[in-house]
Amino acid sequence: MSKPMIQIALDQTQLEPALKVAENVANYVDVIEVGTILAFGAGIDAVRQLRKAHPNHILVCDLKTTDGGAILAKMAFEAGADWLTVSAAAHIATVAACKKIADEFQREIQIELYGHWTYEDAKAWRALGIKQAIYHRSRDAELAGVGWTDEDLNKMRKLSELGLELSITGGIVPEDIHLFAGISTKTFIAGRALASESGQEVAAAIREQIAKYW
Amino acid sequence: MSKPMIQIALDQTQLEPALKVAENVANYVDVIEVGTILAFGAGIDAVRQLRKAHPNHILVCDLKTTDGGAILAKMAFEAGADWLTVSAAAHIATVAACKKIADEFQREIQIELYGHWTYEDAKAWRALGIKQAIYHRSRDAELAGVGWTDEDLNKMRKLSELGLELSITGGIVPEDIHLFAGISTKTFIAGRALASESGQEVAAAIREQIAKYW
Repeated sequence: MSKPMIQIALDQTQLEPALKVAENVANYVDVIEVGTILAFGAGIDAVRQLRKAHPNHILVCDLKTTDGGAILAKMAFEAGADWLTVSAAAHIATVAACKKIADEFQREIQIELYGHWTYEDAKAWRALGIKQAIYHRSRDAELAGVGWTDEDLNKMRKLSELGLELSITGGIVPEDIHLFAGISTKTFIAGRALASESGQEVAAAIREQIAKYW
Repeated sequence: MSKPMIQIALDQTQLEPALKVAENVANYVDVIEVGTILAFGAGIDAVRQLRKAHPNHILVCDLKTTDGGAILAKMAFEAGADWLTVSAAAHIATVAACKKIADEFQREIQIELYGHWTYEDAKAWRALGIKQAIYHRSRDAELAGVGWTDEDLNKMRKLSELGLELSITGGIVPEDIHLFAGISTKTFIAGRALASESGQEVAAAIREQIAKYW
């Protein structure tokens, strides 16, 4: 099992502060994500500018694509995204449309596990050749005080067994990393923890925990 | 039951052509929608510019909000949207966060019915005071040749009975309008049919069908 990478989610509402945050932690993270809030705040230009500023990072465009898959995927990949997120609630035809464009660009699709998704859905995504999914506590669920549960961890293990590599997110802090040992983890995604002034220290602490458990 | 309104979905990838399309049909439609593709293509500025150009239309921001609800809702409503779409796959805490902001701005939330939503979900949305939902064939499902079915119509009737007014979309053409007679319909949403050069005629034909069946 390869070591999980560290991903910063940029969820600023405007591009300039997002570029500053990315610049501050770029040397400490492997993956930079244009979060949904930034993608809507600044539009596709956010993907273009971050690609330009960080040509060697993996760049994620977090659109949580739910429909119009082919067009959105083309826009995101042409602007320089490596990975595009697609909602688990999208029709399988939408997921397939995104995957087809991803293949043309030699990029990847990540399924965002929101809503009442099923393991049958997960098998259908795998059958399309999709290798990645994102597992998270909803940001709003997190704000409502819902923590990581055994149920979460069991679901992650089952998705791992189906061959999906997971990016894990939702208020990730260094002290949580040990919970996910043994799960096929592609990245740990953090937003606010890495965007703070102590972002570099937080990233280093996450990296240290990863080294301990993987 | 009030007469359904007509909504144009702007799904251009850039703002200028979208403004032109809106201008062409503004006098023929009641509701203008910044589609997800346009919202990502041009960012929140698309909402601002369309609000400015069409101060008297109902303006929808189709973000299919799935997380980060409070921030996205605030952005959309501050930019001038009247209605914001929220994915049926969003955590109920996200839906509640969006509804709270909508109430503060005296605007409305529309639930976009994607994924494995349930009638229990629909009751939970109603319990939050949400009055609108959007029912559609997925654009990609439509491209894959999946038509309107009895199952669709039965679901719509059941949602009507729960007190949800529906906006209906997915390749809407005048000849389909009669199918939805008796359903509590807020708007019929069309994109490409209204964006074409014959957009005004199509809108007039839809209006004529509405007059016949409502």
